[in-house]
Amino acid sequence: MKSVKIFAPATVANLSCGFDVLGCCLDTVGDEMKISLTNSNEVKITKIDGANLPLETHKNVAGVAVEALLASYEKKVGVDIEIYKKIKAGSGIGSSAASSAGAVWAVNHLLENPFTAQELVQFAMEGEKLASGNAHADNVAPALLGGFTLVRSYEPLDVIKLHTPKDLVMTVIHPQIEVKTSDSRSIIKHNVSLKQAIQQWGNVGGLVTGLFTEDYDLIGRSLQDVIIEPLRSILIPEFDTVKKEVIAKGALGCGISGSGPSIFALSKGEQTANIVAEAIQEVYSKTGLDYDIHVSKINSQGVKIID
Amino acid sequence: MKSVKIFAPATVANLSCGFDVLGCCLDTVGDEMKISLTNSNEVKITKIDGANLPLETHKNVAGVAVEALLASYEKKVGVDIEIYKKIKAGSGIGSSAASSAGAVWAVNHLLENPFTAQELVQFAMEGEKLASGNAHADNVAPALLGGFTLVRSYEPLDVIKLHTPKDLVMTVIHPQIEVKTSDSRSIIKHNVSLKQAIQQWGNVGGLVTGLFTEDYDLIGRSLQDVIIEPLRSILIPEFDTVKKEVIAKGALGCGISGSGPSIFALSKGEQTANIVAEAIQEVYSKTGLDYDIHVSKINSQGVKIID
Repeated sequence: MKSVKIFAPATVANLSCGFDVLGCCLDTVGDEMKISLTNSNEVKITKIDGANLPLETHKNVAGVAVEALLASYEKKVGVDIEIYKKIKAGSGIGSSAASSAGAVWAVNHLLENPFTAQELVQFAMEGEKLASGNAHADNVAPALLGGFTLVRSYEPLDVIKLHTPKDLVMTVIHPQIEVKTSDSRSIIKHNVSLKQAIQQWGNVGGLVTGLFTEDYDLIGRSLQDVIIEPLRSILIPEFDTVKKEVIAKGALGCGISGSGPSIFALSKGEQTANIVAEAIQEVYSKTGLDYDIHVSKINSQGVKIID
Repeated sequence: MKSVKIFAPATVANLSCGFDVLGCCLDTVGDEMKISLTNSNEVKITKIDGANLPLETHKNVAGVAVEALLASYEKKVGVDIEIYKKIKAGSGIGSSAASSAGAVWAVNHLLENPFTAQELVQFAMEGEKLASGNAHADNVAPALLGGFTLVRSYEPLDVIKLHTPKDLVMTVIHPQIEVKTSDSRSIIKHNVSLKQAIQQWGNVGGLVTGLFTEDYDLIGRSLQDVIIEPLRSILIPEFDTVKKEVIAKGALGCGISGSGPSIFALSKGEQTANIVAEAIQEVYSKTGLDYDIHVSKINSQGVKIID
């Protein structure tokens, strides 16, 4: 029975200006999974450690993602999936994406790569659809491709890997409150002013340029969100204070990770990212809320084999 | 009396997805200007050839742009401006921008460059404000910086030069009908759906990526405008037919140049750009309308000294 053990990375989607299209992959935060090919012709979730998630294949994001892959595969195979969950569900750093992306990547690897990265994104999106009702790609794309990714288009799906400046380091705080993705989406307005849309796409252009030219200052100037953040940030305790403090400590930019409640700050260099982490800790230690803080380089590889 | 003779290039703004923020500079289409420093302490338009434009300084786009520059200059100087207009007014390829940008660039050159390119953009925008009531930068920026440019932000102004893939060639058709910029702006809706805005900024990210990575296919896929083009294209005779024909002939993409009525098509290589020009000619020759067709490489320098 062929099997592989993998690291399935956490991801930060949206990156302020790039709602639904931009994302990046973390290096030190993620799940572990063991995926095995079997002769059962079935996809089975055989173990879940660290989270209370459904074992029924069709209710499990990794299960439905792998079933989507196998539906496009010429031969009949079975897959056993063990999930060692470390990313907390509902944290806003791509917990469901890690499981979906990790599972399809590993199965593709065990089958000797019949599918392209683009196809794997499409399969993993089935997991996202199950998790949130919306087949978005801005977490599964960076989990699968690594680094920074752009979803240029959803119809047809067109996912592009951007360049990763080597000194970028992410600090993420996860306040342990529950903000459901569905609630977080319902707070968003269906229409935006053209003026704000122009500001947003100016910043998307600026951020992508900053990544390719390794212009850290431009990356910082472009990390702005005039459309979603003003609405969603009210769901996140102390968001404005955290943002103010981390910018004062030298972070390039700060925003909501995915649909929240996690907050990300992007810095140049680990030293600044650690100072930023301390600043966030100082704000959050006064709230009485539980929280996790992560500091991570950008993972330019995506899902990785471990053992 | 120090003087300089310059080529003031035409420009294509918006580039489909990048309404108000993207633009690029043409190489074979543009005005000529002769700018001289004088002791008069006045800005004078001493000659206009090829167009019926105001000689009064405060009514002339080059005049007001140079006055904006001199208002920020420490010493008192006078400037004489001769304009040899070749870009037709109202064509949608940056006629007013060429005059404004050319004039401030030349004065800055004669003064031995006291101002940055970013500052020159700001001065030239005063000309745009006079011409259209709106101080936009998406034509003056590429005219001044050359190549492809991004206006990341208007407040504060943040203009960035992008990379120019060497094989890109622009074909532009100018149907000689009058579409006033003010009419062309009034047709635009003040609100857009978030869904369309996301498509648009996905394409801005894709286009900028395509430019930096010289991925011509990605540039083509990204040259889409789901917001403005569907509204404005009804003002341009045979727009849909032209677009369909040029794509069939191998153009990477096609859209409205600025606020129209000119249509641009971007191709890889001069041969395709010329075939595209013939295809447009075939469509337009049946309309009975007068038109000009230009084929031009991208001018990565911007305003140039001639003679």
